[in-house]
Amino acid sequence: MNEGVEWAVHVCLLLDWLGSDEPVSTTRLASGYELPPPYLNKQLQALARAGILASTPGARGGFRLVRPLEKITMMDVVTAIEGPDEAFQCTEIRRRGMGANRAERAFEVPCTVHTAMRNAEFAWRRALAAQTLADIRARTERLLPTMGERVRAWYELN
Amino acid sequence: MNEGVEWAVHVCLLLDWLGSDEPVSTTRLASGYELPPPYLNKQLQALARAGILASTPGARGGFRLVRPLEKITMMDVVTAIEGPDEAFQCTEIRRRGMGANRAERAFEVPCTVHTAMRNAEFAWRRALAAQTLADIRARTERLLPTMGERVRAWYELN
Ligand code: FES
Ligand code: FES
Repeated sequence: MNEGVEWAVHVCLLLDWLGSDEPVSTTRLASGYELPPPYLNKQLQALARAGILASTPGARGGFRLVRPLEKITMMDVVTAIEGPDEAFQCTEIRRRGMGANRAERAFEVPCTVHTAMRNAEFAWRRALAAQTLADIRARTERLLPTMGERVRAWYELN
Repeated sequence: MNEGVEWAVHVCLLLDWLGSDEPVSTTRLASGYELPPPYLNKQLQALARAGILASTPGARGGFRLVRPLEKITMMDVVTAIEGPDEAFQCTEIRRRGMGANRAERAFEVPCTVHTAMRNAEFAWRRALAAQTLADIRARTERLLPTMGERVRAWYELN
């Protein structure tokens, strides 16, 4: 799985803890986790296309959260970064070799192996959709209650 | 996700439908789905290392199933082919940038973002472990009741 998901979730949390009304630049967001700005920018653009962040162009531009963390699920972020495709890609090997002479009708329903993999992916997606970034923020603050203050203090010094 | 999983599950089903007491060669297994024998052989070796297939070396050698399909789950096959590593790999970005001066103690528990991704992967693994290859065989035979006969007829002609 792409590092992009790790970066994207952390940046959304960072933006929430900052609570800034102004957009935050890619450079500053990248410095929060020492990430390479051009690569991070690609992920930020993907989050903007998905309607999770808003992008403001220009010298004083940057990114801000469009909706509260309660309304952003892990599934939203993973889909924004990885795309909506299934991880398991069936290449229809059932149609080749011993299946080559079978009637086309036999292939109208998805392969049962594909269905089994898809069932498991649905379980994964449901588990991602059941967790919001607000849940993750709450768990983090249970471990580090001063997280918001730390983030704002870091931001003022950087 | 690797094509190896698709190939591996289909080959296990093929071996079960054949019901041969003799090991079946990589070449014949590959021809069942028009797969490249050297690449398929890599996956078959992985299934053998995982104790799903037994490998017999030599000119008349090949592979056979070691246990009934009831005792092989989709999780067994995916782990054999993809390895046991988590798909989401946390690179510990929380320790960098704004986290750089935090006490080591703060990092003793896994990052809450990592935990969220892991929760979803557990759901995926549970769903894979809940499906045996016998379930898939049963679903296939419900759609194609003569599957076993077809496979054996193909084998005799090839
Ligand atoms: S043909 Fe692709 S999973 Fe069966
Ligand atoms: S540091 Fe890796 S997921 Fe948070």
